[in-house]
Amino acid sequence: MTASPTTQQLPVVEVLSRCREQVRPALVRAVNRLHPWHGEMAAFSLGWERVDGTPAPGSQGKGIRQALTLLGAGAAGAPARDAVPGAVAVELVHVFSLLHDDIMDGDETRRQRATVWKEYGTGPAILAGDALFALAVQTLAEAPAEHSAPAVRLLASTLADLVRGQADDLLFESRPWLGPEAVQPHEYRWMAEHKTGALLGCAAGLGAVLAGAPAATADALCRAGRHLGVAFQVVDDLLGAWGDPEVTGKPVHSDLRRLKKTYPVLAALASDHPAAGRLAALLGAGEPLGAADARRAAGLAEEAGGRAAALTEAHRQLDGARRELESVPLAPVALGEILALFPYLVERAE
Amino acid sequence: MTASPTTQQLPVVEVLSRCREQVRPALVRAVNRLHPWHGEMAAFSLGWERVDGTPAPGSQGKGIRQALTLLGAGAAGAPARDAVPGAVAVELVHVFSLLHDDIMDGDETRRQRATVWKEYGTGPAILAGDALFALAVQTLAEAPAEHSAPAVRLLASTLADLVRGQADDLLFESRPWLGPEAVQPHEYRWMAEHKTGALLGCAAGLGAVLAGAPAATADALCRAGRHLGVAFQVVDDLLGAWGDPEVTGKPVHSDLRRLKKTYPVLAALASDHPAAGRLAALLGAGEPLGAADARRAAGLAEEAGGRAAALTEAHRQLDGARRELESVPLAPVALGEILALFPYLVERAE
Repeated sequence: MTASPTTQQLPVVEVLSRCREQVRPALVRAVNRLHPWHGEMAAFSLGWERVDGTPAPGSQGKGIRQALTLLGAGAAGAPARDAVPGAVAVELVHVFSLLHDDIMDGDETRRQRATVWKEYGTGPAILAGDALFALAVQTLAEAPAEHSAPAVRLLASTLADLVRGQADDLLFESRPWLGPEAVQPHEYRWMAEHKTGALLGCAAGLGAVLAGAPAATADALCRAGRHLGVAFQVVDDLLGAWGDPEVTGKPVHSDLRRLKKTYPVLAALASDHPAAGRLAALLGAGEPLGAADARRAAGLAEEAGGRAAALTEAHRQLDGARRELESVPLAPVALGEILALFPYLVERAE
Repeated sequence: MTASPTTQQLPVVEVLSRCREQVRPALVRAVNRLHPWHGEMAAFSLGWERVDGTPAPGSQGKGIRQALTLLGAGAAGAPARDAVPGAVAVELVHVFSLLHDDIMDGDETRRQRATVWKEYGTGPAILAGDALFALAVQTLAEAPAEHSAPAVRLLASTLADLVRGQADDLLFESRPWLGPEAVQPHEYRWMAEHKTGALLGCAAGLGAVLAGAPAATADALCRAGRHLGVAFQVVDDLLGAWGDPEVTGKPVHSDLRRLKKTYPVLAALASDHPAAGRLAALLGAGEPLGAADARRAAGLAEEAGGRAAALTEAHRQLDGARRELESVPLAPVALGEILALFPYLVERAE
């Protein structure tokens, strides 16, 4: 990475912002179809002040998924507007998954604010998630495009993959840190490809599907998005261990304190560095870590090479995504904008 | 109702059993696609001993929804097998809604067994519900039938209705028993039509859609199913207040103890019988009722005419369903079997 973050990030921020603007009216219309209670929770979760889509500064998501959908259509040679129902659907699925995952993971804050279950209660948050899930399917199923049927099929298989990945992530919690039952880095990658990659892949692929692109184009975009998702999840893990809570919006070391199986820690434990043994001993007690121990664990994971290994893995996944995109003919401007997202995703952790 | 329950119920039990047999192999195949952990929870919830579909005696559902789908296809003049993906989808959605609703309602037992969240934990039960939801959409989206697209549209709008109804049911909990803010019987009917009727309507309508029936036929079956759903919910309320817990599988008076807004109680409170005032005083304290008070509340609700009004309402809804079915030409044998379900649904509460 030779370009400075500043020169790299400016155009990306503009691309993301342009895509959010293009999707916003349709997203607002979709959210307005919800039961008002669910509309309120969706608006809260989307970082909007009100259901009309007026944003609360700083609490909005970046909108990577919706951007990928529009850019996927562009890369397939179609106007971005063809892909708007797909962008709305992936954004709704993303919010659905945040709502439910935050309950499962017991996360109380997101983007410096209370999570929906913390603010509205568990039952209402479950139901609002279900409502967003249903609305996502409905949005695609009712899309005027002639490609709505394959789009729904892609979304449905994505949803199945997504819950499969989340299931493995939950099951990892009860697996040991060391020994034959320990979670291996390749299992982590499989989990992340499903939990996070499936939706990013769907986002990119859906753009092409709605644009009526050949199956090979949509598939390549899907696979690229899945690589991107693994990179994204690994970077999220890095930020959880070494990121600034002011920027991440999450409590410091929350993954480490909760003994979550993150890539940097798994990679550190898989190394033969002496710090790996000390890290294993610290984590192996099975009790949630206090602040001091979590800080120590982050230090040991770094010493054992976990941080570097995770960054290498993130870049390896980006290379995989790049190769997928090079494997099919794509329109250069949109392709360039997709590629510009890559360093942006990783630099936030470097 | 002149025929005795025995003569009425025997053929219905056979119809339900025949439909379950027809759907079972496809349902087993669908459940086997799930993450094994979710497959286990689905099998548990379906009352199967094992994921291969072998049942645990007595813990199976009746399968009203899947039967309606096959009979809906039959009524539209198509073979039942055309509707099997629809039957699988509605059954999966039904189990999804049980899993999530049991969490929201805090219900710890169902069909004399622990509920899924009680047995496996809240997070896993949320996720298993999501997996079933996704699988339902996937099953229909991948159906080989040429009518898969309108089928998915019907399912998606049904899911949206279902969560809307459940939202109102949850919101009813914080509404008062008396005064201008009290829940009115017509609001209850709207809630029940969405929460329970939408899926029964979808079940019946989906059979016709997958059979390629004219829209008017599918719509009439949908509307009939929605009436049936309101009747079903009202009967459920009756069973909750006056049913035998051995038969219902739920703790006695659980709705009353939790101050749930059920039709018999709302109808009792809306009457001008003196017992209505005593009932309002008992419920109005806002505290969950003890066993003795719940028994007293059931007695007062009956005295004030709530039980009779609920039965009348259930029959009125069945009449509405019958009228819908008479409004379009339907194949007589399947129509006869659908109509045979009607008394079966209500007699369990008489």
